[in-house]
Amino acid sequence: MSQQKYKITLCYEGTKYRGWQRLKQTPETIQGKIESVLSRIFDMPIQIDGASRTDAGVHARAQVASFTAEKRSCEQLKQELNRFLPDDIAIVAVEHVASDFHARFHAKKKTYHYRIWKADYPPVFQRKFVTVLGGELSIERMQEAIPLLVGKRDFKSFCTDKTKKSTIRDLESIEINETPEEIIIAFTGTGFLYNMVRIIVGTLIEIGLGQRDIQSIEAIFKSNTRQLAGETAPANGLCLEKIYYEM
Amino acid sequence: MSQQKYKITLCYEGTKYRGWQRLKQTPETIQGKIESVLSRIFDMPIQIDGASRTDAGVHARAQVASFTAEKRSCEQLKQELNRFLPDDIAIVAVEHVASDFHARFHAKKKTYHYRIWKADYPPVFQRKFVTVLGGELSIERMQEAIPLLVGKRDFKSFCTDKTKKSTIRDLESIEINETPEEIIIAFTGTGFLYNMVRIIVGTLIEIGLGQRDIQSIEAIFKSNTRQLAGETAPANGLCLEKIYYEM
Repeated sequence: MSQQKYKITLCYEGTKYRGWQRLKQTPETIQGKIESVLSRIFDMPIQIDGASRTDAGVHARAQVASFTAEKRSCEQLKQELNRFLPDDIAIVAVEHVASDFHARFHAKKKTYHYRIWKADYPPVFQRKFVTVLGGELSIERMQEAIPLLVGKRDFKSFCTDKTKKSTIRDLESIEINETPEEIIIAFTGTGFLYNMVRIIVGTLIEIGLGQRDIQSIEAIFKSNTRQLAGETAPANGLCLEKIYYEM
Repeated sequence: MSQQKYKITLCYEGTKYRGWQRLKQTPETIQGKIESVLSRIFDMPIQIDGASRTDAGVHARAQVASFTAEKRSCEQLKQELNRFLPDDIAIVAVEHVASDFHARFHAKKKTYHYRIWKADYPPVFQRKFVTVLGGELSIERMQEAIPLLVGKRDFKSFCTDKTKKSTIRDLESIEINETPEEIIIAFTGTGFLYNMVRIIVGTLIEIGLGQRDIQSIEAIFKSNTRQLAGETAPANGLCLEKIYYEM
């Protein structure tokens, strides 16, 4: 029976899930749902590797995962997966890839968006995907803070990882865009630590609200502890937008 | 106590509601929810007139309603309404208007959008707002049918009204737009009969799927009965986008 490595691209609304990563105590994770449907389709246990371990409540427009299984038609597998998956998870694409492909290890860059609601009425259509603040943000102050945050740096103070591994990451860019109703902060980088985007967003929000000096960012980096940075922004505003691979 | 006429603009996700119009047997209508909050705020029964009586499951981005009540600050009233309304209804604007203003009688035109999902994977983020079809639509065939549908005509065959009033309406335009994932059909006209947009959409879908001749439209008009037109398209794809008033 010939084995095939698959790459799947998928989107999900994270609202109801305990995050990406499979948990022993509950089936309510994205990875758990997909593995359970794949195992049913292939009639044997299938494990998948996701490019990003998104947190509970975080969404994805284009998460990528890889796995090995019996060779099948991509189109047929995609249709079968979508037939059995719940309506808040959809498989956008299924591809056959080289046997050494790994969704996480081969990811070159990732882009996340964080959406903040700015209109003076509550979000209705976007309420699961935006964070609503009490006050008004100064985009100008947030823009000023960006050069102090980007680049290849040790982000130990901007994460809740307890790992002893390196906390140096290359945060390539932070871009702020506005629509009449929203502020969208786009983060692109080679990798992100646990809660890193949400802690940077929380820090930028405090700066935008005028509750924090822009210069405090250097002190946060120097401290090498989680304590000085802003609060972790709520999960529901965060969405994994894209994973980049070398072709 | 001075009385004031108010115009409110509001949006809602219709999924959970039995439609716009107040019903005696259930509070689960948009009008019912808003009247109940207004009556609480003003501490007396308040009735409102909506520009469009959207059906169960139909959404609105900019429904308009009018009512008379004690004079208050618009900004304060908007905030109070939004504090008490459920998270699937939001008041976008509150205005003081002339005492003879009536949201329905003074509406000059309305625009509705009907959204059809066309991607080859299920909608996740838009699943409450689009209709998913089994087959592929020919936009070209649908475009060809439009000239046979627009204009000032008797739409009796395209409605489920049992009224003896006039069923002549001026359907100014039908426009079809596409995104990579959706087909959006925009209807603009002076007024719409009960289920008229959804029956025209159902007819256009049958034409787009190749299940119906374009020429059948004339026979539908001539028949003066509901029987010949296409099926009523599902409510969740429909959204009231805009009500036009003369300034």
